[in-house]
Amino acid sequence: MNFPLKQIPERTLAPRSYGLTMVMDKGMGIVDVKNFLSVAAPYVDIVKLGFGTAYVTNNLKEKLAIYKENNIPVYFGGTLFEAFLVRNQLDDYIAAMKEYGVDLVEVSDGSISIDHAEKCRHIERLVKEGFKVLSEVGSKDASHVMPPYKWIEQMSAELSAGSTYVIAEAREAGNIGIYRGTGEVREGLVQEILTKIPAEQILWEAPQKAQQLYFLELLGCNVNLGNIAPAEIIPLEAMRIGLRGDTFDLYLDKK
Amino acid sequence: MNFPLKQIPERTLAPRSYGLTMVMDKGMGIVDVKNFLSVAAPYVDIVKLGFGTAYVTNNLKEKLAIYKENNIPVYFGGTLFEAFLVRNQLDDYIAAMKEYGVDLVEVSDGSISIDHAEKCRHIERLVKEGFKVLSEVGSKDASHVMPPYKWIEQMSAELSAGSTYVIAEAREAGNIGIYRGTGEVREGLVQEILTKIPAEQILWEAPQKAQQLYFLELLGCNVNLGNIAPAEIIPLEAMRIGLRGDTFDLYLDKK
Amino acid sequence: MNFPLKQIPERTLAPRSYGLTMVMDKGMGIVDVKNFLSVAAPYVDIVKLGFGTAYVTNNLKEKLAIYKENNIPVYFGGTLFEAFLVRNQLDDYIAAMKEYGVDLVEVSDGSISIDHAEKCRHIERLVKEGFKVLSEVGSKDASHVMPPYKWIEQMSAELSAGSTYVIAEAREAGNIGIYRGTGEVREGLVQEILTKIPAEQILWEAPQKAQQLYFLELLGCNVNLGNIAPAEIIPLEAMRIGLRGDTFDLYLDKK
Repeated sequence: MNFPLKQIPERTLAPRSYGLTMVMDKGMGIVDVKNFLSVAAPYVDIVKLGFGTAYVTNNLKEKLAIYKENNIPVYFGGTLFEAFLVRNQLDDYIAAMKEYGVDLVEVSDGSISIDHAEKCRHIERLVKEGFKVLSEVGSKDASHVMPPYKWIEQMSAELSAGSTYVIAEAREAGNIGIYRGTGEVREGLVQEILTKIPAEQILWEAPQKAQQLYFLELLGCNVNLGNIAPAEIIPLEAMRIGLRGDTFDLYLDKK
Repeated sequence: MNFPLKQIPERTLAPRSYGLTMVMDKGMGIVDVKNFLSVAAPYVDIVKLGFGTAYVTNNLKEKLAIYKENNIPVYFGGTLFEAFLVRNQLDDYIAAMKEYGVDLVEVSDGSISIDHAEKCRHIERLVKEGFKVLSEVGSKDASHVMPPYKWIEQMSAELSAGSTYVIAEAREAGNIGIYRGTGEVREGLVQEILTKIPAEQILWEAPQKAQQLYFLELLGCNVNLGNIAPAEIIPLEAMRIGLRGDTFDLYLDKK
Repeated sequence: MNFPLKQIPERTLAPRSYGLTMVMDKGMGIVDVKNFLSVAAPYVDIVKLGFGTAYVTNNLKEKLAIYKENNIPVYFGGTLFEAFLVRNQLDDYIAAMKEYGVDLVEVSDGSISIDHAEKCRHIERLVKEGFKVLSEVGSKDASHVMPPYKWIEQMSAELSAGSTYVIAEAREAGNIGIYRGTGEVREGLVQEILTKIPAEQILWEAPQKAQQLYFLELLGCNVNLGNIAPAEIIPLEAMRIGLRGDTFDLYLDKK
């Protein structure tokens, strides 16, 4: 760190298995990738190329190479997985990921309806194919509200099937899944999930500051957070350790 | 495209006359221009240097040169046209555009009141001077609501006067003109306009995602959309072709 | 300026003592700093590295060097000052600023409660140590509403203690201090402050466009404005001089 400040909570160090920041890259330019890594690389654990943006991004290989040089794992958004799956092209997707040297994959059903057992079989297959799997729970459809026991059931089954992390869905705007339409956290749901699923294996999508704050207060500075905008990595890191107004008092020794 | 996905709707290719994405550059740095073009150039048809930003932008010529190298036409925001016009300096404006090698011009009356016949004469003159004209319909003044027949009358007259496209005004924030104060589309207005004016000649300013979605659902993936933020070009392109949650089902063959 | 437009109000020129734009850098990359300066350098008077971001920013010295090359003074956010102070480490903070070549400092009490006389002693000490001091008035705590006479009392005392400017607090989101929770200006408060404190010595934090507009209309194009996002420097500069819809009529000679 740049200054000798006392009473700063201890963050896990890269490469982290807990305390992750997953960044949402929804089509950044090549220079911009180098740019945000110049100041924030130590705090970037995983990058998601949001939804289907990888399909239309020019010079994709060059961009992926920069992440690779920085040892930052990248995956394509779950919407792309679903787009291949719904077209009966899962084999093509696997081939494409291998061609691009992407070895992390998101398995989701945010825009499609599939049987949960089938979803787990996809997870198992992808693990067998050598991928590290992140699987996402929670629909992108606002009208489809799942009761907590279903979240727990699905998360458990997906971890058993081989997912390294389960992602709690929030959509890019942060207003669905574990959040209400207003972006407010469904606190009862979150707390119930935590009675059964280890926090270390959940990646909470939390694009809004108030959402990040909620999880920091609940689970501490090393909570796994995702869908962080590139410009918000440094602000989030400052907030994680109590150097933003919102968390200023969180770790202070009050005597 | 980067992957072999089936059932993707066919986008027109650059240089496009329909299916345009007009990008709002409101003062980007030189490096940033190169940066967003590195991944998004094939989807950028026209760039607007928003309102009067061109007047205060340092190193403007260098910036324009980068767009020129990439064969992307640039124009100055209509507010600048109006600022020259209201000061009785239209000749100076024409000279300035020629000096900067800008051959696309926006003719608008968002902040000034001029007789519509006069507006059309300006369009005619600028066409005669060798410019390609985009003319904008709809006031920036929220209290000034034009009935649909007026929109149609003005759009028709401006196309007859020589405009290549008519722009349906939305302001940068997307809350005026064809939208209500909340950003909601004035759907009746849009549909009535479309009964008389060909969609191919209308450029809809649609800075918000919900607005873009409305026009994609109404007019298909090749609708002309404008006031797109540079960071939203790739996300919009993914949404245009069904690779974002919102449009996932739009082009799928449902059997 | 890039074009010969008449009736443009006269802006002060860099290095300015009035008409300041203070930019909030909350963790920009190295390239991005060069990038925004390429087009906006003449309008950037002071840069704040927001809250505690300087603590976690990688390659901080390299970043500071770029600002130095461009003769732009930089200071660390007040939250960092408070973090050192509350840990009884003010000496360490002074040493750190000297090590990093930062000679501008913010003295604030947004997240901590200190006696106002003590705050003034810190200002005096820092002035004596050779720093130029900006001191901030107004709590980050929404529930803590100070009456106008208190604002005036504190601002006066801080200027007497040696502050070069007093900052009217708004938080990054612009919803506290001189603003209501909705971001609306507390107009009575602002106007009362201005009866006693010279506008030239106040730096108004005004991250939102409507807030910037309020102060431009009240105090003219050379008002001191702060917490401006890097991407908003050029748009603000255009707005300052009447080249944005919102201020189009502000300086026009109406005959």
